[in-house]
Amino acid sequence: MNPPSSDRQTATRTLRLELEYDGTDFVGWQIQRQGRTIQGELSRVLHILLKEEIRPVASGRTDAGTHALGQVAHFHTSAAWEPDRLQRALNGLLPPDIAVIGLTEAPERFHARFSAVSKRYRYRIGTAKTALHRGQVWPVYFPLALEPLQQATQDLLGTHHFSAFCKRDPEPENFHCQIIACNWRRQDRELIFEIEGNRFLRHMVRILVGTMAQMAAGRRPPTDLAELLRQGDRQQAGPTAPAQGLCLVRVHYPDFS
Amino acid sequence: MNPPSSDRQTATRTLRLELEYDGTDFVGWQIQRQGRTIQGELSRVLHILLKEEIRPVASGRTDAGTHALGQVAHFHTSAAWEPDRLQRALNGLLPPDIAVIGLTEAPERFHARFSAVSKRYRYRIGTAKTALHRGQVWPVYFPLALEPLQQATQDLLGTHHFSAFCKRDPEPENFHCQIIACNWRRQDRELIFEIEGNRFLRHMVRILVGTMAQMAAGRRPPTDLAELLRQGDRQQAGPTAPAQGLCLVRVHYPDFS
Repeated sequence: MNPPSSDRQTATRTLRLELEYDGTDFVGWQIQRQGRTIQGELSRVLHILLKEEIRPVASGRTDAGTHALGQVAHFHTSAAWEPDRLQRALNGLLPPDIAVIGLTEAPERFHARFSAVSKRYRYRIGTAKTALHRGQVWPVYFPLALEPLQQATQDLLGTHHFSAFCKRDPEPENFHCQIIACNWRRQDRELIFEIEGNRFLRHMVRILVGTMAQMAAGRRPPTDLAELLRQGDRQQAGPTAPAQGLCLVRVHYPDFS
Repeated sequence: MNPPSSDRQTATRTLRLELEYDGTDFVGWQIQRQGRTIQGELSRVLHILLKEEIRPVASGRTDAGTHALGQVAHFHTSAAWEPDRLQRALNGLLPPDIAVIGLTEAPERFHARFSAVSKRYRYRIGTAKTALHRGQVWPVYFPLALEPLQQATQDLLGTHHFSAFCKRDPEPENFHCQIIACNWRRQDRELIFEIEGNRFLRHMVRILVGTMAQMAAGRRPPTDLAELLRQGDRQQAGPTAPAQGLCLVRVHYPDFS
């Protein structure tokens, strides 16, 4: 009989990570030829602990500078570490700007990207200078009204073709996204946008926010949003709001996964 | 008739500042021989704008590393800047880790320290690794129970002699402080302490938290708090919790000031 050992090899398992990170000092989720990435840091530390080449797969890539409160990723391993113990070891070895806030056994068929039902993003506009939240808001110091924002979001709900709100590099195959929930609120010295959808295109939330900020500033009518969704012309939409205001709040999966 | 000018000299005015700052990279509020201070940064920038030697007076000093969401300070000036315009100019010239969130005309007799009726502090213990709040919590990774904390705070309300919870350098003249409100709550992956009192001694909140953390960890009974207040022996209290978890939330003044 073999003694139980945490290093023994077992059948391949699927592990699910829940991650919080401060995107400030990363060039994004995905490993690049140059620059610090979340995927790269995780790979490096998983290799130290599990002696395997592991490249965790996320629910989606986040841009350079974008944060996460509840990014989800999965990986396969044949190492037999207990999830709790592996989570503590990862947190000990990962840099201070990445935290593993959950690590659980997942069904073999679980896939962080393909199993996801919806994702929720938050975008924070800082309406006055802030010291404590400075890396997590887009500072906009001209007056912004909440009412046009609330009006514009009504046209976002449902399924639309978001080609006006998408960076075309590379060209996506499918521009249709279903928005399940979205709202703007004023809280302290911030305007906060939350949006949940079945999928998001590249820079979609940031271009939506850049466009709606023009509406909040009175520079275009809130009815433009429906018009932009119909026309689908990126050139007619507003600028891309900075990545630092964006945070991936959580990813939903069906109960079975 | 002189034209109105923002640079003309007037009678001395008292201006009241409300400040948010990230204490991480400061050696504290008060100007020191060496190191970056909040008072020093304000003095430097006020000198640029008002051409006067100004040393703003705060409601109280904060330690190196301690944050503020609503520190209050005052200063006197004979410059005639409009408060709104001066606030914008200060925010433009101050470093990113200090924000002037309010600047108002105050009665001549207003004194940020002596006019204060009460101050409210918040102390955040992080019960799991966090990336986005890492500079603003004390990370404590052994299990902490909320119930002993709630029990201990009941003995804090009212007026007590806080000599067991005070750094004796320099020796204060008066150890009596009245605690008006205090409570612990669990929120997300944090245990949060809020305490409001008419005055606080040096390191008082941090020693209280260091002592109560021992209670939450089951290493001493919550009834020790009343005993420590009676005995007044610093050696019997717990360690000083780190400055980075502490934040001065707000300062109350009577309506007239």
